[in-house]
Amino acid sequence: MSMLENIHSPRDLKALPDGRLDELAADIRQFLVQAVARTGGHLGPNLGVVELTIALHRVFDSPADRILWDTGHQSYVHKILTGRQDFSKLRSKGGLSGYPSRAESEHDVIENSHASTVLGWADGLAKANEVRHCSDRVVAVIGDGALTGGMAWEALNNIAAARDRPLVIVVNDNERSYAPTIGGLANHLATLRTTDGYERFLDWGKQVLQQTPVIGRPLYESLHGAKKGFKDTFAPQGMFEDLGLKYVGPIDGHDIAAMETALRRARRFHGPVLVHCITEKGRGYPAAEQDEADRFHTVGAMDPLTCMPLAPSQGPSWTSVFSDEMVRIGRERPDVVAITAAMLQPVGLEAFATAYPKRVFDVGIAEQHAATSAAGLATGGLHPVVAVYATFLNRAFDQVLMDVALHRCGVTFVLDRAGVTGVDGASHNGMWDMSILQVVPGLRIAAPRDADQLRAQLREAVTVEDAPTVVRFPKETAGEPLPAIDRVGGVDVLHRPTGDQRPDVLLVAVGALAATCLTAADLLAGRGIGVTVVDPRWVKPVDPALPELAAGHRMVAVVEDNGRAGGVGSAVAQALRDAGVDVPLRDFGIPQQFLAHAKRGEVLADIGLTPAEIAGGIGAALTRLTARSTPAGDPVAPPHARPAHTSERIHARKEQVSDDIV
Amino acid sequence: MSMLENIHSPRDLKALPDGRLDELAADIRQFLVQAVARTGGHLGPNLGVVELTIALHRVFDSPADRILWDTGHQSYVHKILTGRQDFSKLRSKGGLSGYPSRAESEHDVIENSHASTVLGWADGLAKANEVRHCSDRVVAVIGDGALTGGMAWEALNNIAAARDRPLVIVVNDNERSYAPTIGGLANHLATLRTTDGYERFLDWGKQVLQQTPVIGRPLYESLHGAKKGFKDTFAPQGMFEDLGLKYVGPIDGHDIAAMETALRRARRFHGPVLVHCITEKGRGYPAAEQDEADRFHTVGAMDPLTCMPLAPSQGPSWTSVFSDEMVRIGRERPDVVAITAAMLQPVGLEAFATAYPKRVFDVGIAEQHAATSAAGLATGGLHPVVAVYATFLNRAFDQVLMDVALHRCGVTFVLDRAGVTGVDGASHNGMWDMSILQVVPGLRIAAPRDADQLRAQLREAVTVEDAPTVVRFPKETAGEPLPAIDRVGGVDVLHRPTGDQRPDVLLVAVGALAATCLTAADLLAGRGIGVTVVDPRWVKPVDPALPELAAGHRMVAVVEDNGRAGGVGSAVAQALRDAGVDVPLRDFGIPQQFLAHAKRGEVLADIGLTPAEIAGGIGAALTRLTARSTPAGDPVAPPHARPAHTSERIHARKEQVSDDIV
Repeated sequence: MSMLENIHSPRDLKALPDGRLDELAADIRQFLVQAVARTGGHLGPNLGVVELTIALHRVFDSPADRILWDTGHQSYVHKILTGRQDFSKLRSKGGLSGYPSRAESEHDVIENSHASTVLGWADGLAKANEVRHCSDRVVAVIGDGALTGGMAWEALNNIAAARDRPLVIVVNDNERSYAPTIGGLANHLATLRTTDGYERFLDWGKQVLQQTPVIGRPLYESLHGAKKGFKDTFAPQGMFEDLGLKYVGPIDGHDIAAMETALRRARRFHGPVLVHCITEKGRGYPAAEQDEADRFHTVGAMDPLTCMPLAPSQGPSWTSVFSDEMVRIGRERPDVVAITAAMLQPVGLEAFATAYPKRVFDVGIAEQHAATSAAGLATGGLHPVVAVYATFLNRAFDQVLMDVALHRCGVTFVLDRAGVTGVDGASHNGMWDMSILQVVPGLRIAAPRDADQLRAQLREAVTVEDAPTVVRFPKETAGEPLPAIDRVGGVDVLHRPTGDQRPDVLLVAVGALAATCLTAADLLAGRGIGVTVVDPRWVKPVDPALPELAAGHRMVAVVEDNGRAGGVGSAVAQALRDAGVDVPLRDFGIPQQFLAHAKRGEVLADIGLTPAEIAGGIGAALTRLTARSTPAGDPVAPPHARPAHTSERIHARKEQVSDDIV
Repeated sequence: MSMLENIHSPRDLKALPDGRLDELAADIRQFLVQAVARTGGHLGPNLGVVELTIALHRVFDSPADRILWDTGHQSYVHKILTGRQDFSKLRSKGGLSGYPSRAESEHDVIENSHASTVLGWADGLAKANEVRHCSDRVVAVIGDGALTGGMAWEALNNIAAARDRPLVIVVNDNERSYAPTIGGLANHLATLRTTDGYERFLDWGKQVLQQTPVIGRPLYESLHGAKKGFKDTFAPQGMFEDLGLKYVGPIDGHDIAAMETALRRARRFHGPVLVHCITEKGRGYPAAEQDEADRFHTVGAMDPLTCMPLAPSQGPSWTSVFSDEMVRIGRERPDVVAITAAMLQPVGLEAFATAYPKRVFDVGIAEQHAATSAAGLATGGLHPVVAVYATFLNRAFDQVLMDVALHRCGVTFVLDRAGVTGVDGASHNGMWDMSILQVVPGLRIAAPRDADQLRAQLREAVTVEDAPTVVRFPKETAGEPLPAIDRVGGVDVLHRPTGDQRPDVLLVAVGALAATCLTAADLLAGRGIGVTVVDPRWVKPVDPALPELAAGHRMVAVVEDNGRAGGVGSAVAQALRDAGVDVPLRDFGIPQQFLAHAKRGEVLADIGLTPAEIAGGIGAALTRLTARSTPAGDPVAPPHARPAHTSERIHARKEQVSDDIV
């Protein structure tokens, strides 16, 4: 019988005798491997924090004390110990979130899955405790990788400045975030790690010594005010202490007794303390320990023994299409370099790095630096391709705008996981980029509809030398090729009304939703509604052909895998207004909400981005417009508005530009 | 005769004998005080870097070597030494920019006025040199204040990791950014500053010693590979060296010879070097030296002797209205706390800080931390008010979205300098906030039209406990009160068509452009066009009354002091579409471009945000719509579209809700 059956809350955990904790840790590991193999999820990070989490919940009193997790995918053990052991629907609709969730438990605080936030939260919570004269404690767990993020530094600087405001920072140092951690800080942590604990030991006390054989840096000299000069002579001054943080460590993060001792002392200290603990990602699962690359950071559902995926993916992923094309481009263009923010493999740059190791830069979890150093690289004569998950580009908005765009730098941003991603919940969905990037002067956005377009548009993007470009695509597989039947201006025509149908609706299909739109057009055709389906390819700026095409239809519909507010639909609507084309428009996209986790397809169905729902919405809008334009109704929006151009002129223009297609 | 008359380029500077450099520095100071007194501009920062800039241009070969300035308002001396001595129209239309400008000179690289960017640029440029096998040097000048910004840390971490990629960082340490620098880093820099140079001296050489009496930390021990253990014994290990950067300093930044020596050594080093120099903001101008607060960071045009402003402002500024109301709110609400990012005085929080010193947090130049620590403070039971210039909030977009909004935290963001700011050029204009914040679920935006509304809406904002709120207002004076004549839903009606006029146009006036819109309405009335002017007060979410009001008019016009892409105009247009109200809409705002510096009024005139231009645009659109709706034309957009509501219903609703007005 697993010990977990008797652990329903941190109180049960505290009641356990010390001697049984290693057994509990083993039970938790077994639970994790079996549960995550069944559903998929983050495995390696959670295997690494089993003992750390046990120690935290034995030393601190959650929820009064706040235990905060950075990049919450390392919170599975925390969930198990706080009454959540039903992992059967982990990351599925209605099941447990893959991240902390306040709806699930009062023990959860931060739901955000973006890295490096926890120290900012901790500083705010500690300040609130101070203002409210409350003595509850705040403890923040952050990985060594996340410390490279700028906001972690901003927070450290603030935390360190308040010498008498209690706050415990636990650095969970596994020498890797998604991949081996890059940078000067990593080197410094490595130095601290290799410090010989005994040699530099000053005054830790015999009892403590017996319990914590691996403690290297003496805490007591700091806590009890050993003279600074004396300490400098014997122990190297670490940068954390330079900043004003008490430093404790390194501690073996898999030694529960050592962790508990260190955390108890840290908890008592009336000021900011950093506890540096060393853990092993994937600990206790041989397959993960042996996988040097990322130790099973995230896994899909798999056989826990063979590690074979249960549902292999169908067809090439968008990521792999990008990956292959980048290698080809790199061969032809020695000026093309690549940048990743600690996600070389997930964003598909591993092959490029293998082929051109000196032309790839992993900047750490540092999206701001990815963008601004790209501006520098471009100004230095190269063309950087910054590959990043769409949602993480939000971190670099100011840098894309003020460093890259203002300086008219030729930088290509490749946004993977754009649109609905689903299982990772609200903060992973890439539903913001096509809205916020609309404001960036000169920036161009491509939303390829299939693998061929991704290859073609990536190549177009890297030829733009005086402005930033964005190429964005969703997760999962790239689907079937969707050939164009014509091109008008820069717009691909994918479908036209059949012979006897009038052009009722211009359906603007953005990116990977083209297939959905084509099906919707078929459904509408069945109801006698003629639909022209176009893919604008470059959705920013709006192609001048779109207002012209719109003028030949009774209504325009825009469908995008992006938040509705200020998205492509709004941009097209504005372009129509500016052209004096007042054809009614309806826009279909992601409602401007934080979406609960579920499979991508389930989310798309929930929010109405399916062929049937889109067709239904268009049909209803058209019916209402038609009713109004009959003599009996108000003549609001008449059919076939042509304020500036006749359909003949459009056809003439179409023929002219179609010669230009490469 | 000033020596400046013979300095046309860095070459002339290099030809000067060492003995005349102090005289040159004096001439530059005199020039600066007289020039900036005439036009206004950044005075203190430039007085502080006179010798530093001279030394940089004598040691490095700009433009082949790249001399990069963080927060470019400290680049006036650089301009003077690179052939730009006509300061007569500094920051005025057609005159010199107040920041570096690539259009002005090949010696300029970074135009962005947002802080902490320079190290990212430098890392990119150094990487480009490496890839291109180019031996030109990169030197980045950054203030101690800007080092608190997260992106500076991200860059430092990357720079330090590449031990053999040459790059010179000059930390211009004046112990203050806008105000005294806050945080752990500041404490560490203070420790380094007070290091006694002679005591710790190891091997700097006699000649160097004579020239550079204040050098404290030995460079040679690092450059020439003195044993680490040996060094640790004698000199405290600084955090920069912990990271892997060679550290040189502290150097007296006003001692040209010492600076030149340090920079020459740094230039020769084949790896990243940090030169720590100490300067005095406002140096050499007694009035500035004596002003402890900010040493004349920015000044308006003034008498250089008396320091009296030449053009005192008219009426209270928006900032002072906010400032006073915050003190009153603080008295009533002990849970209200305030956050500033190193701009306590400019954003109007000084009075609050004086009244409630324990309830104000200056986080340094760290907008990300301002937002995320605010989420923590709110979660801890307080209501934080984050006061920041509108353009700088872009740095915290991800944190506003993922930390504050996703967690439904009651945080109020007060955006000063929203809209066109003018003289500081492209990167200071606050023209982005009402677009990018549209995507943030739950967030509410208030754009007060006058001082009374600012007070009222600030009070409304701080009562919202489950979502972020934004209150945004422009620079300069708050203008005359603009009373409402009615309220419909949450919308203030400011003006109605006179008795015999039809309600042709619903003019939605956003924030401080209300006065402009009222004048435009008068102009239109003179042409027989009836205009209803409304102020929606809260521009996000769009008040449901707006589509209802729109349905009773022939067209809608939205006027906003914000970029047109995805702004309030787009949001209102989408709300109309969603309500099935297809009344034609035209939106007037800032074109989506980077605007050249000029006075705010000049910029507004250039971009057509004047009563005459707005009235003209509305009149022309109306004429075109009318022409189309006549029998001869295409009946695109008929008058008085009422798809869902009759004007009677609107009146009924109006009367009902007008009882609710507080």
